[in-house]
Amino acid sequence: MTPTTNEHPPIAERKEPTYLFTEKYVADKSEIARRFIETRARLNTNVDKAGNFLVKRFYNVDHNTYLEGALPAKTKELMGLVASACLRCDDYIFYHAIQAYRLGVTRAEQEEAINVAMVVGGSIVIPHLRRAYELLEEMYG
Amino acid sequence: MTPTTNEHPPIAERKEPTYLFTEKYVADKSEIARRFIETRARLNTNVDKAGNFLVKRFYNVDHNTYLEGALPAKTKELMGLVASACLRCDDYIFYHAIQAYRLGVTRAEQEEAINVAMVVGGSIVIPHLRRAYELLEEMYG
Amino acid sequence: MTPTTNEHPPIAERKEPTYLFTEKYVADKSEIARRFIETRARLNTNVDKAGNFLVKRFYNVDHNTYLEGALPAKTKELMGLVASACLRCDDYIFYHAIQAYRLGVTRAEQEEAINVAMVVGGSIVIPHLRRAYELLEEMYG
Amino acid sequence: MTPTTNEHPPIAERKEPTYLFTEKYVADKSEIARRFIETRARLNTNVDKAGNFLVKRFYNVDHNTYLEGALPAKTKELMGLVASACLRCDDYIFYHAIQAYRLGVTRAEQEEAINVAMVVGGSIVIPHLRRAYELLEEMYG
Amino acid sequence: MTPTTNEHPPIAERKEPTYLFTEKYVADKSEIARRFIETRARLNTNVDKAGNFLVKRFYNVDHNTYLEGALPAKTKELMGLVASACLRCDDYIFYHAIQAYRLGVTRAEQEEAINVAMVVGGSIVIPHLRRAYELLEEMYG
Amino acid sequence: MTPTTNEHPPIAERKEPTYLFTEKYVADKSEIARRFIETRARLNTNVDKAGNFLVKRFYNVDHNTYLEGALPAKTKELMGLVASACLRCDDYIFYHAIQAYRLGVTRAEQEEAINVAMVVGGSIVIPHLRRAYELLEEMYG
Repeated sequence: MTPTTNEHPPIAERKEPTYLFTEKYVADKSEIARRFIETRARLNTNVDKAGNFLVKRFYNVDHNTYLEGALPAKTKELMGLVASACLRCDDYIFYHAIQAYRLGVTRAEQEEAINVAMVVGGSIVIPHLRRAYELLEEMYG
Repeated sequence: MTPTTNEHPPIAERKEPTYLFTEKYVADKSEIARRFIETRARLNTNVDKAGNFLVKRFYNVDHNTYLEGALPAKTKELMGLVASACLRCDDYIFYHAIQAYRLGVTRAEQEEAINVAMVVGGSIVIPHLRRAYELLEEMYG
Repeated sequence: MTPTTNEHPPIAERKEPTYLFTEKYVADKSEIARRFIETRARLNTNVDKAGNFLVKRFYNVDHNTYLEGALPAKTKELMGLVASACLRCDDYIFYHAIQAYRLGVTRAEQEEAINVAMVVGGSIVIPHLRRAYELLEEMYG
Repeated sequence: MTPTTNEHPPIAERKEPTYLFTEKYVADKSEIARRFIETRARLNTNVDKAGNFLVKRFYNVDHNTYLEGALPAKTKELMGLVASACLRCDDYIFYHAIQAYRLGVTRAEQEEAINVAMVVGGSIVIPHLRRAYELLEEMYG
Repeated sequence: MTPTTNEHPPIAERKEPTYLFTEKYVADKSEIARRFIETRARLNTNVDKAGNFLVKRFYNVDHNTYLEGALPAKTKELMGLVASACLRCDDYIFYHAIQAYRLGVTRAEQEEAINVAMVVGGSIVIPHLRRAYELLEEMYG
Repeated sequence: MTPTTNEHPPIAERKEPTYLFTEKYVADKSEIARRFIETRARLNTNVDKAGNFLVKRFYNVDHNTYLEGALPAKTKELMGLVASACLRCDDYIFYHAIQAYRLGVTRAEQEEAINVAMVVGGSIVIPHLRRAYELLEEMYG
């Protein structure tokens, strides 16, 4: 792909979402969340230390994807959840379910997002759905 | 998986969404949409004729997934779009982009949904993004 | 997808398969099977408790897929094994290999099913094949 | 992976299946089959000409996978169909559906195999199911 | 993911590769290449016009991935080919095979890269291998 | 697929690569490598014992894929790494990263290969990238 050069302004419209709950709050409610958050932080420290230029660029694009924009951040976190469940990645399912929780998404909304992934992605998604429900139970229970 | 037996009521909360535009309206605006809708209808006629019991059950579950519920139908159509783009299926990308359009989703919202799929799914999603943008241009242009 | 309405009769032809062995029998022979069965039961209890309507419908469709029909239940369990191995999901590989065992499928038949998945899906299937062979060894050994 | 050296005998048990119908017979019944078979033959000629050693070895392993063995060839062609539908590859769906037809598999059996793929693989399989049903209609109609 | 902030220098080490052949040269040798290049250019014009901020950022990251660096650009184009063949995307297979050709990669090298994808990804890669060989034949024939 | 019969000679050109380091050397430097190598050896013993004909043939084709040839063995191990990261398989990521290390590949080269997989395969690759970086840190640190 050829990079395009004429940068345009919409960057101003994007802004950081306001979290209702801290990562620590979620980690205190849910043991699954706590273990996930700690492992991710530990591994990311190692990635940061490596300082790979493209990885940093990619992390930056990724971060920008879930900001408030034309769609609310919480909708996009749920879309991240759908994508992760379709592609069957427990790590990202946990990540986006936790982020959505921190932004005030209800359990019913999380379940409906997971349903989209289950129906599009099939029964092979169900082992991940089971583990996601265990996390939901701990966070919302 | 063992089926569960105690049916519960939330069925009442689900209802058909209200479309702002008919399939015909979209087909008249976009040649890509028209071809997609016609081919899908022709092939579905053949599937319906076969009358396979499980296929009908699956179509029914699928239909129920995108009704108004805890999340608005238009959000779930966009989630269907994210899932389809992640899994790289032009047919379902077109289907959900058209459905979202019919429910009044803006082009900026469609683009943000596709961005989630692009970042989660990588550059391999981009050939599908290109074809999706061609459809968006015809529908919204 | 639009749901089809003219229900047709083949439902009568489907019936529950006759298992030669109980889950408990398999769990007693194989530690891998025992752990899988217990974890799955525990997580399913949690899913059942949530009572999500669409999840129940999906579980029901899933259950109907593997009944005796035009193809024997044991063939369809092996097909579930092929699908799970192709899509590289240990949970479902274990599930279908155990179900096939309970229906009297031989080890040679299980190996041939896994071979189809290995050849269609490539060497990336092999780590799953290795774990499947460990289960086969415990069940048939 | 390290190759294993102690070759063992089961090779004798494998044998070529007996086809009830020729490729030509299927091509005469179905335009979709005819186009698929011709394109595949044309492209394979080009691959054969290149004479790549590993490609030939892989084709050979692939060929051996679907011979009569512990499981009948027709069951394994249907398993190839399940795998191809799960992995969403029209080319191999057509290939295995045609092979299964040539071995005397009924339409109901083909539909049940496709159902396993649909339920395991989700609605994303349905566009492929629609095209498979078009082929089935032409072959069995 | 949290973006990392301490930018580091290796950017200087990356530089544009030197192409031995222009896109036009390849398009003149190969009809498949010509059609691919034209369609891609037409669709990209439409994407550029939309000016989506994140798409531009992603295109930029993508462009940087294949520059000369610790690994030669031609090795990374072949790696892009392997990735595209594994993930079974004709568009990107064609793109990277053409780029590799333009950088002076031999046909034998292209075939070995495709072999890695075939063995890792399985027979489901073979329909794509066949189409890739048709392109190779036109470019190198 | 029909097997091709006219065997041709290039087999002579392929030869085993020369490893700079033994598996034991890597296992002594990295606990992650040690655990991976031991588990794989244990499971492979079980697979070997089963003596499945097609599995042995497949292992043999797989082994031949990564020999010195038109491309150096170390390039092909890195391509195996790219393929494994794209297809998101920790087992094969570890396997190929260890093999590449044993052949003298630098850490910067491993990181660039992983970058290709990250950009082609998207953020869903990142949890695997994190675990790969942990292994790289142990091997090269």
